[in-house]
Amino acid sequence: MRNVKLLLEYDGTNYSGWQKQENGITVQGELEKSLKIIVGQETVLTGAGRTDRGVHAKGQVANFKTSADISAEKIKSGMNGTLPRDIRVLASEDVDEEFDSRRSAVERHYGYKIIRRATALERHFAHRLEIDLNVREMNSAAKFIMTQKDFNSFCKATSETENKKCHILKSVWNEYDDFLYYTIRADRFLHHMVRSLVGTMIEIGSGKIGIEDFKLIFEKSDRRAAGPTAPAHGLYLEKVVYANYTT
Amino acid sequence: MRNVKLLLEYDGTNYSGWQKQENGITVQGELEKSLKIIVGQETVLTGAGRTDRGVHAKGQVANFKTSADISAEKIKSGMNGTLPRDIRVLASEDVDEEFDSRRSAVERHYGYKIIRRATALERHFAHRLEIDLNVREMNSAAKFIMTQKDFNSFCKATSETENKKCHILKSVWNEYDDFLYYTIRADRFLHHMVRSLVGTMIEIGSGKIGIEDFKLIFEKSDRRAAGPTAPAHGLYLEKVVYANYTT
Repeated sequence: MRNVKLLLEYDGTNYSGWQKQENGITVQGELEKSLKIIVGQETVLTGAGRTDRGVHAKGQVANFKTSADISAEKIKSGMNGTLPRDIRVLASEDVDEEFDSRRSAVERHYGYKIIRRATALERHFAHRLEIDLNVREMNSAAKFIMTQKDFNSFCKATSETENKKCHILKSVWNEYDDFLYYTIRADRFLHHMVRSLVGTMIEIGSGKIGIEDFKLIFEKSDRRAAGPTAPAHGLYLEKVVYANYTT
Repeated sequence: MRNVKLLLEYDGTNYSGWQKQENGITVQGELEKSLKIIVGQETVLTGAGRTDRGVHAKGQVANFKTSADISAEKIKSGMNGTLPRDIRVLASEDVDEEFDSRRSAVERHYGYKIIRRATALERHFAHRLEIDLNVREMNSAAKFIMTQKDFNSFCKATSETENKKCHILKSVWNEYDDFLYYTIRADRFLHHMVRSLVGTMIEIGSGKIGIEDFKLIFEKSDRRAAGPTAPAHGLYLEKVVYANYTT
């Protein structure tokens, strides 16, 4: 069996998230529908990150096994011919049989975009927040995140994941024009983790809580201690990194 | 009578352009509908640039006369409460009676965005062009544009404008990531001018015509000499400049 890796970009606005479900149109569901047409058989796709409803991806990675005799390049162009225009295959290639887009991933990069004024063009692509924000304080919190390992306080309460340890590789807020952009890189992420970190850091930026409160939230290791979950449409799965791959 | 100036951003995707018309939903039409609710009377809006169907604006300027006793700030927030989400009022202020958003404008800034790969997120916001482009040649053409005054060859054939003279203030292509961005600033623009300049420069970039042919197109002063009109969804009205205003 061949193992084919896909690099994907999607606008999450009109989807009930990545993961296929009985009710609701999902990114995985649309991709598997397209694959069935292109490779001519039911195909199960594994995705690196299970993005939630409304979350976007600039560099989602997925893979599937197939016996179809079609070049990876033709799979890409064929899929782009059948997929809705808000999901695109950016690249496709044959990979080792052992490659698993989810389990082989060593790093995941997420971004969160805030726009600090009214906007028409960014309405689906950035969280609009017209309050005063102390970005320096938010960056102190972002820096503190890098020293932490246990993210239980920032994991959706109903999550079934037992291991709440994450190794953070990057965590920083950048300002440009009317935007604030948060970049976080880690070996793995928990359910709602980036959005609840962002929601809590917004509370720091607005002066609702201080950096000491933020540290306490980690100490408590309890989801109820953290701030609200920031809206989905500001979040981007930027990139997934594999040990032997550069995409 | 008061004279109120509006700074506007819109996503042109779902509009038949700026200018009100009998059939088709337009940006001006939606704004006038909103104004009627907010100021309580039929109001005619003058816009600085008549953007075409599908063209976006980051900094369109419009003005209207009213006797309504509502602060400019309340007009802004009221309009944003009634307008569709793909049109936003970014700022509003009372201005001199003589101010006319179209006639008082001294500079207009346009931008054209090209993306050189498949895309989901930018599908409505950049012209996708996956061909090899010689950006250096395109910049030679952009530089040549700055030496020209007569833009008859780059004006829609059916245009009723008699004066085809434009004073170009800036004309340059910039590359970043997978994007190419063309910036052009002038005192005024003719109908379809930016899009036909871009369409012709794409022919230069792809090697279909040379820089000497480009010069000849200007000499001929005939629309049929120029290249095709580039698609509307890559075009942005960036900014309108007034002698006594900074927005």
